[in-house]
Amino acid sequence: MKKIVFGHRNPDTDAIAAAKAYSYLKNQLGEETEAVALGTPNEETKYALNYFNEPVPRVVTKALPEYPEVILVDHNEAQQSIEDIREVTVTDLIDHHRIANFETAFPLYAHLEPVGCTCTIIFREFERHAVEIPAHIAGLMLSAIISDTLLFKSPTTTEMDQLVAEKLAEIAGVDCQVYGLEMLKAGTNLATKTAEE
Amino acid sequence: MKKIVFGHRNPDTDAIAAAKAYSYLKNQLGEETEAVALGTPNEETKYALNYFNEPVPRVVTKALPEYPEVILVDHNEAQQSIEDIREVTVTDLIDHHRIANFETAFPLYAHLEPVGCTCTIIFREFERHAVEIPAHIAGLMLSAIISDTLLFKSPTTTEMDQLVAEKLAEIAGVDCQVYGLEMLKAGTNLATKTAEE
Ligand SMILES: [Mn+2]
Ligand SMILES: [Mn+2]
Ligand SMILES: [Mn+2]
Ligand SMILES: [Mn+2]
Repeated sequence: MKKIVFGHRNPDTDAIAAAKAYSYLKNQLGEETEAVALGTPNEETKYALNYFNEPVPRVVTKALPEYPEVILVDHNEAQQSIEDIREVTVTDLIDHHRIANFETAFPLYAHLEPVGCTCTIIFREFERHAVEIPAHIAGLMLSAIISDTLLFKSPTTTEMDQLVAEKLAEIAGVDCQVYGLEMLKAGTNLATKTAEE
Repeated sequence: MKKIVFGHRNPDTDAIAAAKAYSYLKNQLGEETEAVALGTPNEETKYALNYFNEPVPRVVTKALPEYPEVILVDHNEAQQSIEDIREVTVTDLIDHHRIANFETAFPLYAHLEPVGCTCTIIFREFERHAVEIPAHIAGLMLSAIISDTLLFKSPTTTEMDQLVAEKLAEIAGVDCQVYGLEMLKAGTNLATKTAEE
């Protein structure tokens, strides 16, 4: 049975990239999944998708009736999730936020760590399953880490985020600082900040 | 800051063994933790502790004021946990149950899998950190898997539980079937069942 993988509403780069990366991993492991989004990507995310030649994921608002089983990344709170989250089965959860207002009817696979970005955790999932990360997926994951940590400047940044980002930059074939600044500049985040200043 | 590690109220063998095993792992990794219990062990668990020369963990009912940070194993629901669970910080959660009535104020490390026993998941934590499992800890973990899966007969048993149990039996130096039947016989579970029959 095909599952959809998605991040939170008003998706940021981590919500989109983590869905794409985890969906890719699950498919490599023999499951059938599709990365979708609960909203249209912002300018920063569009820049990253375009840079690594990845299509914008389609937007969904409900899982049922097609997808009784879903996978959550980069969020767990029901109010940030798909409309009918209470009526579907969550089989996997990969996240770096506190747990709140999240309940399942069945045991599930969950991997949470107190790190700066969901894609840092997903890197460890690739390692655990010994699946190689293709360059374009590595590029998206790196974009998510840069976005969530504001190029390693946010207080939530951990050593592991930095180590993983270095490895991803190498696989993606980009310079972390050069690409990162370009991506943040392209995004609404920095644009807004600059406008405010 | 020292943390306590505990399973659910009315502890079964998994609740006690998972606390002991995860506490051992965390201590090896440089943290200071103590495995405690939210109640006295049952006859089956006492048999396992005695067989592997492990002391019965002390019983606690509250974490505060000594332990503002705690680690949960083999449960997550507040009503199954320590009395003041809502007032303390959960830093780690290792479990194989559905998530319900569990909320944290901060991001945490969580590893949940839909397998038959928490100790199966903890085996993977040892692997991940490349920490060797001593024989007595392996014996307790094996006891938990045998207990939760009723010697691999319960419908919740997975292939992974069986694989991990085999490896643990080798480390512990016991025959899984022989030891398992003895332990289950010593326990209240089978004693009750036999009495009913
Ligand atoms: Mn996000
Ligand atoms: Mn994130
Ligand atoms: Mn239990
Ligand atoms: Mn259990």
